[in-house]
Amino acid sequence: MKKVLLQLDTDEHPSPFDAIVAHDAGVDVLLSHGGVKPDDVHGLVQDAFFTRGVDDLKTMAVWVGGKRVSAGEEVFGKVQKAFFGPFRVSVMLDSNGCNTTAATTIARIAKARSLAGDRAVVLGLGAVGLRSATLLRDEGCEVTAVAIPPDLFGDDRPYRKPSGVGAAEELGLDVREPADRGALESVLDGAQLVLCSGPAGVQVLRGDFWTRHPTLELLADYNAAEPLGLEGTKATDDLASHDGKLVLGALAIGGPKMKVHKACVRRMFEANDQVLDTDAVYAIAKELV
Amino acid sequence: MKKVLLQLDTDEHPSPFDAIVAHDAGVDVLLSHGGVKPDDVHGLVQDAFFTRGVDDLKTMAVWVGGKRVSAGEEVFGKVQKAFFGPFRVSVMLDSNGCNTTAATTIARIAKARSLAGDRAVVLGLGAVGLRSATLLRDEGCEVTAVAIPPDLFGDDRPYRKPSGVGAAEELGLDVREPADRGALESVLDGAQLVLCSGPAGVQVLRGDFWTRHPTLELLADYNAAEPLGLEGTKATDDLASHDGKLVLGALAIGGPKMKVHKACVRRMFEANDQVLDTDAVYAIAKELV
Amino acid sequence: MKKVLLQLDTDEHPSPFDAIVAHDAGVDVLLSHGGVKPDDVHGLVQDAFFTRGVDDLKTMAVWVGGKRVSAGEEVFGKVQKAFFGPFRVSVMLDSNGCNTTAATTIARIAKARSLAGDRAVVLGLGAVGLRSATLLRDEGCEVTAVAIPPDLFGDDRPYRKPSGVGAAEELGLDVREPADRGALESVLDGAQLVLCSGPAGVQVLRGDFWTRHPTLELLADYNAAEPLGLEGTKATDDLASHDGKLVLGALAIGGPKMKVHKACVRRMFEANDQVLDTDAVYAIAKELV
Repeated sequence: MKKVLLQLDTDEHPSPFDAIVAHDAGVDVLLSHGGVKPDDVHGLVQDAFFTRGVDDLKTMAVWVGGKRVSAGEEVFGKVQKAFFGPFRVSVMLDSNGCNTTAATTIARIAKARSLAGDRAVVLGLGAVGLRSATLLRDEGCEVTAVAIPPDLFGDDRPYRKPSGVGAAEELGLDVREPADRGALESVLDGAQLVLCSGPAGVQVLRGDFWTRHPTLELLADYNAAEPLGLEGTKATDDLASHDGKLVLGALAIGGPKMKVHKACVRRMFEANDQVLDTDAVYAIAKELV
Repeated sequence: MKKVLLQLDTDEHPSPFDAIVAHDAGVDVLLSHGGVKPDDVHGLVQDAFFTRGVDDLKTMAVWVGGKRVSAGEEVFGKVQKAFFGPFRVSVMLDSNGCNTTAATTIARIAKARSLAGDRAVVLGLGAVGLRSATLLRDEGCEVTAVAIPPDLFGDDRPYRKPSGVGAAEELGLDVREPADRGALESVLDGAQLVLCSGPAGVQVLRGDFWTRHPTLELLADYNAAEPLGLEGTKATDDLASHDGKLVLGALAIGGPKMKVHKACVRRMFEANDQVLDTDAVYAIAKELV
Repeated sequence: MKKVLLQLDTDEHPSPFDAIVAHDAGVDVLLSHGGVKPDDVHGLVQDAFFTRGVDDLKTMAVWVGGKRVSAGEEVFGKVQKAFFGPFRVSVMLDSNGCNTTAATTIARIAKARSLAGDRAVVLGLGAVGLRSATLLRDEGCEVTAVAIPPDLFGDDRPYRKPSGVGAAEELGLDVREPADRGALESVLDGAQLVLCSGPAGVQVLRGDFWTRHPTLELLADYNAAEPLGLEGTKATDDLASHDGKLVLGALAIGGPKMKVHKACVRRMFEANDQVLDTDAVYAIAKELV
């Protein structure tokens, strides 16, 4: 019986990335739907699983993607509401690559060092940043999540008010909104770990600040586009040492992230009850990275 | 040469059900188009069959689906208008599963008992009900088609004026519009057979009425959602006896309907001139059920 | 590793023709996107090629299609702008079949006779006509491109002002806008070659004119719908002789065009840097026709 993946994407055009990786991971039939709205989900999901007997439901799964993570989260919830009785299929959320990226990065860091007791600072309150923050907290870090202040934005990249403050507070994170670069730098006092997840093209930490920082030991950066979040680093830095501090760049995560992504797709077809949210993807990432 | 199915669906999102069953039935390449309007059809169909030589046209077929049966019927007509000379391909209409559901159900009943001379009443004037009514008439029944009166609708399910009266009259059916439940029940006087095809969630016949009915012998119900159309039955009843009367529930039809659906898809690829409308699907259902 | 083709189509419904031929030509995974706008392209293309390592980029290609050639040209340009560093994939433009049709036709003519020094007249300034005109010029013809005058249009086919005059001038072609049929016929004085690429259903040259013409030797017609562009010919004429003149009809091009189309798709997967525009498709057509 063919392995069918229902791709529900909240963007007009369903992501070619997600589609291609699904095929590479062994999906036989991919049904790609773009512009999916929450009200579409119930019908699409039931329409799909009604083609299968109860014993064959693991030959089918649902993938939720698209650029906007909050829209994806809503669709992800609706998918699970379409299940009833024994009728359920595995489902994964990875809008904008949020879960695979955060999980792979933190798993990579957790393999490189013990995290329990560390003070970790996440700079930037986007979906990937917040997912990373909760994973670090679960690993025993004391985590602070920080909004990027206006003076870090350049002319090319106008300031956007951070939209993630409320979401970060709901997650129970210690949230800070520093007024300027100086205030942001003070938040790093005593931190061993920093994660830059600011907007693409915004340099978050200057080289002469972070290379001389007295307590920082490991820095990661989710930005792959110049200028990088960490001045003086390369996106390909794979725990490379800079003045004794380890740096993990965005492109060094690409290979393991792809491995995790494919493994998640395959995992969905091993049983019909997998719900691959941040935590479940992280568990898979820790096995693989 | 690959077997290509062009799925023309009148809904925004082409049906995953139809897509998956097509793959399960051996289609190699499925081209799914959603939001198809009648004016799109000529170009899409010709664009497809111009890839094939006249001798290879049976490697291609057209599937018409979507929730709205009347929209599907219009598209189905346009597909056949796109043919010219030797250029034609097989085509099937099954919007909302109308043809496979009606054909499978009536074939199942026709196998269980001789229908010629029976008085049959179809309750509900939707597309599946009307298709069932004409099939019963072709089997020799005296058929009455009945609109569901307002007092059967509950608070959860507000009354909708029946839209199928005109369509039923065009089909030459004896049509009734009873004022209330009592009037509806009187229409069943002398009937051996009743088919409930009312809206989902509307209980059409009360248990103390139908179980004590002096002439009714077999009752079928297209509703799978609670409350069922026939009080006191189960959707899985597969010609189960209730007080000496046989009941066929909606879910008992699911398996054979799927078998018919797949057989129809395969049939389209045996020749390039199959037009699988209600009658043609019924002929296939009678072979299989 | 699977061969992936990203079909970017500027029409609402991506062309079934292009989709089916892609599958017939050996593509494993086709990702069809309809309604593609220039601003969508950068993201879609990068999203696709980021699934591949630099060494595997030839397992992926981009196809640009749709009815409107100018829209396709814009998308074709944007695809190439999405490339950076070693990240590039092969890409082909064939909106409305323009490149495969023009290239196959001119290659067929170039095989039948030497073209250098001929006077060639292209009647009609559509995308296929203009592409044919430049290919003829590259083969050494003296080319004149001619707009279809109003009196050739019938009641069924109302006159449309030619939109290609500017485009033809930009290509450096000798462009004429004759006032009527008589003026159009005079443009053919001394021509050996004429190509009818007027709108479908417009008869461009009358039989008693072209069959008696003193210098014409070969005539081709892109119209397949009656009335044909050349009165008294058949769409299946494959360099058939009419009163000593050779005629190439639209349907005689169908077979070799399909062969060229498939060869182009396959060529894209031989390297990651093929840019299949008119000239590149012509080079392939000359090998095959």
